[in-house]
Amino acid sequence: MNRRIGVIGAGLMGLTHVRLLTGGVSGAEVVAVSDAVPEAAERAAAEAGGVAVYADARELIDDERVEAVVVASPAGTHEAFTVACIEAGKPVLCEKPLAATAEAGLRVVEAEAAIGRRLVQLGFMRRYDSGYVAMKAALRDGAVGAPLLLHCIHRNASVPPDYTSDMLITSTAIHEVDIARWLLDDEIVSAVVHGPRSPRSPGGLRDPQLVVLETAGGVLVDVEVFATARYGYDIRCELVGEAGTVTLAPPRTVEVRRDGQDGAMVPEGFAPRFAEAYRRELQAWTVAAGGGGATGPSAWDGYAASAVGEACLRSLAEGGGSHAVELAERPGLYAAEGLGASSRV
Amino acid sequence: MNRRIGVIGAGLMGLTHVRLLTGGVSGAEVVAVSDAVPEAAERAAAEAGGVAVYADARELIDDERVEAVVVASPAGTHEAFTVACIEAGKPVLCEKPLAATAEAGLRVVEAEAAIGRRLVQLGFMRRYDSGYVAMKAALRDGAVGAPLLLHCIHRNASVPPDYTSDMLITSTAIHEVDIARWLLDDEIVSAVVHGPRSPRSPGGLRDPQLVVLETAGGVLVDVEVFATARYGYDIRCELVGEAGTVTLAPPRTVEVRRDGQDGAMVPEGFAPRFAEAYRRELQAWTVAAGGGGATGPSAWDGYAASAVGEACLRSLAEGGGSHAVELAERPGLYAAEGLGASSRV
Amino acid sequence: MNRRIGVIGAGLMGLTHVRLLTGGVSGAEVVAVSDAVPEAAERAAAEAGGVAVYADARELIDDERVEAVVVASPAGTHEAFTVACIEAGKPVLCEKPLAATAEAGLRVVEAEAAIGRRLVQLGFMRRYDSGYVAMKAALRDGAVGAPLLLHCIHRNASVPPDYTSDMLITSTAIHEVDIARWLLDDEIVSAVVHGPRSPRSPGGLRDPQLVVLETAGGVLVDVEVFATARYGYDIRCELVGEAGTVTLAPPRTVEVRRDGQDGAMVPEGFAPRFAEAYRRELQAWTVAAGGGGATGPSAWDGYAASAVGEACLRSLAEGGGSHAVELAERPGLYAAEGLGASSRV
Amino acid sequence: MNRRIGVIGAGLMGLTHVRLLTGGVSGAEVVAVSDAVPEAAERAAAEAGGVAVYADARELIDDERVEAVVVASPAGTHEAFTVACIEAGKPVLCEKPLAATAEAGLRVVEAEAAIGRRLVQLGFMRRYDSGYVAMKAALRDGAVGAPLLLHCIHRNASVPPDYTSDMLITSTAIHEVDIARWLLDDEIVSAVVHGPRSPRSPGGLRDPQLVVLETAGGVLVDVEVFATARYGYDIRCELVGEAGTVTLAPPRTVEVRRDGQDGAMVPEGFAPRFAEAYRRELQAWTVAAGGGGATGPSAWDGYAASAVGEACLRSLAEGGGSHAVELAERPGLYAAEGLGASSRV
Repeated sequence: MNRRIGVIGAGLMGLTHVRLLTGGVSGAEVVAVSDAVPEAAERAAAEAGGVAVYADARELIDDERVEAVVVASPAGTHEAFTVACIEAGKPVLCEKPLAATAEAGLRVVEAEAAIGRRLVQLGFMRRYDSGYVAMKAALRDGAVGAPLLLHCIHRNASVPPDYTSDMLITSTAIHEVDIARWLLDDEIVSAVVHGPRSPRSPGGLRDPQLVVLETAGGVLVDVEVFATARYGYDIRCELVGEAGTVTLAPPRTVEVRRDGQDGAMVPEGFAPRFAEAYRRELQAWTVAAGGGGATGPSAWDGYAASAVGEACLRSLAEGGGSHAVELAERPGLYAAEGLGASSRV
Repeated sequence: MNRRIGVIGAGLMGLTHVRLLTGGVSGAEVVAVSDAVPEAAERAAAEAGGVAVYADARELIDDERVEAVVVASPAGTHEAFTVACIEAGKPVLCEKPLAATAEAGLRVVEAEAAIGRRLVQLGFMRRYDSGYVAMKAALRDGAVGAPLLLHCIHRNASVPPDYTSDMLITSTAIHEVDIARWLLDDEIVSAVVHGPRSPRSPGGLRDPQLVVLETAGGVLVDVEVFATARYGYDIRCELVGEAGTVTLAPPRTVEVRRDGQDGAMVPEGFAPRFAEAYRRELQAWTVAAGGGGATGPSAWDGYAASAVGEACLRSLAEGGGSHAVELAERPGLYAAEGLGASSRV
Repeated sequence: MNRRIGVIGAGLMGLTHVRLLTGGVSGAEVVAVSDAVPEAAERAAAEAGGVAVYADARELIDDERVEAVVVASPAGTHEAFTVACIEAGKPVLCEKPLAATAEAGLRVVEAEAAIGRRLVQLGFMRRYDSGYVAMKAALRDGAVGAPLLLHCIHRNASVPPDYTSDMLITSTAIHEVDIARWLLDDEIVSAVVHGPRSPRSPGGLRDPQLVVLETAGGVLVDVEVFATARYGYDIRCELVGEAGTVTLAPPRTVEVRRDGQDGAMVPEGFAPRFAEAYRRELQAWTVAAGGGGATGPSAWDGYAASAVGEACLRSLAEGGGSHAVELAERPGLYAAEGLGASSRV
Repeated sequence: MNRRIGVIGAGLMGLTHVRLLTGGVSGAEVVAVSDAVPEAAERAAAEAGGVAVYADARELIDDERVEAVVVASPAGTHEAFTVACIEAGKPVLCEKPLAATAEAGLRVVEAEAAIGRRLVQLGFMRRYDSGYVAMKAALRDGAVGAPLLLHCIHRNASVPPDYTSDMLITSTAIHEVDIARWLLDDEIVSAVVHGPRSPRSPGGLRDPQLVVLETAGGVLVDVEVFATARYGYDIRCELVGEAGTVTLAPPRTVEVRRDGQDGAMVPEGFAPRFAEAYRRELQAWTVAAGGGGATGPSAWDGYAASAVGEACLRSLAEGGGSHAVELAERPGLYAAEGLGASSRV
């Protein structure tokens, strides 16, 4: 018996989800697709085997056959569609960000808290990557002792023309913000951004940036975020503990020696790098949706990441000083997840 | 609409297939399980959600709801059950080996050739491993020039008490035999086994062995097969071409530094090492079964691997001389697959 | 015809120099040793084949047979002995730091500038490490484009009891300060230190620290400096350019697989890690001394590194704000070396 | 007080020795050079600082100022010059091979045995490579248990026009023969060569070859020897023991990421790969020569390697059967070195 899924948004991200749900996830089938661009919706619906198409995402949410919803539409729509799913009582996988601002994200948190059970899973797919999972296991097992530092690198080969300097934080480094919170099981309390004094070209990006975060428990987290690294998409992470370190191994299938070089390919973008993480994310979500709820990264995680991002943006705008992260009180609904400084004290 | 699968054999291998089909493959569901041991069958059936159990595998094959069959029972039963599936017109995934002997395997080949279409996929899962897939792509793309040598290593940490010296070839090195044929798209024509002069302990295995094969196209293939390597399960492969080499990268998720060491974990057995390859194997088989046929490694591949294995056993028994591989003529059904010396000449 | 060397200071560092000059450097021989501790001096003199021993370092400098001097005595004595060598017209290899403070270092610079030729080589041995040399070559060859970021890690397994929180900067990170200036051919203009809020144990070190430097040319340099990393001595460096990155490869001789691990040894301390760099440093110094002068890292480099270190200490003391590096005007004697922002503009 | 060295042969190898003795070895100085080509001799003499030149190598050997001799002239002259050094009582470093044939090598062995002390060190420089040294240490320390297999790879990017198919054994694989004997402390008793059926081009080399050796103690050694590997000079070695493996780590200074690749440079030839091993070889030889004798690889090692090579050549000529290695009885002079099956039993 398959779970019947509706997918809102049929751009690159939505199409990826349709393909994975159709070709690599057990117990799920896509039954409806929605997109503001009819051709995109039609194409994705065809990939799912010719399923229903809605121009209006709300009709998809209201379709009785749709048991669970993936929200992969533009960021500005996430709040409304996710709240609509909560109100309809349907499990929802919402791509990051949770909402356009931390304040808006808090409204989603409150909507979910009001019904008293989790329906929202945030699309922080890295938590399903076998590398990060192994890092967390090593930390939990005490392999490296108490955590002291976390070094992160996030490089994109290139970005679209409409990508802005702020998006190095809000679209890119936000993944590291979530991973840091999750790995360390600790909230981030302050942020500094060491940006370049000026863009390298007129009107260009302030790129790369070096973000330094501090957690409630006193762990320092640094993130190089580099949107135009040219050579490829490269994600690095090293956790330094009192007794040792655990480092993400770059995924490699083969090494080639020729022309005086011994090397491996660097992926071009996030899709090949995290393909299996996306699949596992959807598989886990499908299983949880089958039980009528949600697990994994929560609305609170989405809200907290946005709040950290906003502290980073203030630091970037004001030339690099330290800025505190301002968080609302965490509803009890999310307490069981365990995140927070208290868990480390 | 899911494909309805029956699984024959509920030991380690069969149970693995049940779990993957139930929890990681799109479009499939297990509807029946059979095993000579009732408890094993019940347990697997429970994991699949409480499906039908048959004591007699033939009843499972005859069950009208069963659209496709996985044969994961003991090797001695493979021929009979696979031929029964062919006669029932049902797609079948047969674990290696195809049959107890090359001669028996040839009977399966002939049975399938007689109906004129492929229904059998052999369980050579490595062809679905992302590393081997990338090796083949590198070779096909000309990255390393024409192939000259293939170095393979196959190490198990340990083997069960009933494992014999012959099984280093027939159960273990057989994976490398298939990978060599597939990567090189070339038949193996002769075999030498350099064994140890005697077991290391009374009544012990002749272990490790060094197998040297030659293909019709003149490529030399060497395989270290080591059944009691203690430190872990380790699979290595390097293809040497006229212009360079391509090497399987050992899968790594993280690296840990502590106590004066910088290292990564070696998997204990084949299950973690090839988990994703098994999943992809089953996904590809499910898709092909949905079309009523089979793709990937064929009955012919299973037969040819057994014939190579038998040449190896003759060399091992007779102290290391070179022994020719004797193959029947290949039915036209398998010609389209392209394997064979002709494709390289 | 060998160059006749006197070595001042026969502790670990001085003894290392005696051994290398005696057993691994062409054209040099140690003829005199001095140390405030007579037993240490005698031991080193014995290793050099029973050479002269002086209780007073100035007598060693004045000894007519001594053609060149290594200063490896405690930091507080460096200024006086190095200036004495300058006044005696004898080439001198001075271990870092150049002097106890930047101000004192500037006096050595001025003494050397006054005689109008270089006699001082600073003991920044990393400039002779094959890894750093290859990094600089890659940068110079344009392999990675214009530099944007430099990530450094400097970990010691442990430190002596008298090691202080300031020494993470002045004794440890000072190597990275020099390497950054040398690799980038650029002066450092500001420094921020992100320290831990408090030591991990009462009276303990503020350890680890995260130093962020900015060069005149706008390159950001971050340095993790961790004095009690336990697992070993680990030096990492990655230069990020507009077109790619170049990373120091950890030196490895062998990899061992056993007990489920595939790993390499991490060195315990700086001695094995940089043994060959020390040898090359001494060989280069011997050759330059043979010509009556000095090459490589200069007194100016020693002074500038100290000035950067003092900006770091101010930031550490004041809780992490950005502090400017204050440098005197560089004498023309050091202009030919090319270092400075001008070379990059 | 430096040891005064004469160098016979001023080709690539001889010139390398002159440079290392002049610029990287403590306690040595080159005082005379000899070569049949006057220009070559003059050039090398100039590099040594304008030392004596002899057209006749025997005059160099007889020169009273010459205390020790390096023989780096063509292979056909090694026997005569090395015996002349033995007769003159002067320590000699003889490049491999010891002599043109095993039989001729045995005459050198007998000449040295007749005087009852070691004066000859064979130029098997790999024994001084830090990687091989660490492999031997790991084996000796029991890190991997009793040895069972040794996998070796020896690839040259290209070879000179006069290089023959036999030279894959006698000039190239001979290094692995010595390393196998030394690492395992065991004599090789039989050899099989799996050659390609025919050269890849008319009149071309039978290249690559796969050599399989067996030691007295039952260890299997396989060597890929590939003279025209194009992509670079690549030396690999993995020792497989009962409890684990130890593998030579390819020397790396830096890794570069650009253009979608993450890689390291492969050296072009043996000179950069083994530069430091040559330096250490000469340093060790200088020290031993200072004591009037020789240590390290002996004349016996040179003879034994040649005898193994000749068994390989018989196998290559006769199409791959197993051929026994025929060794004379080992003189007591070499017994103390410990090599031989007895040491493992």
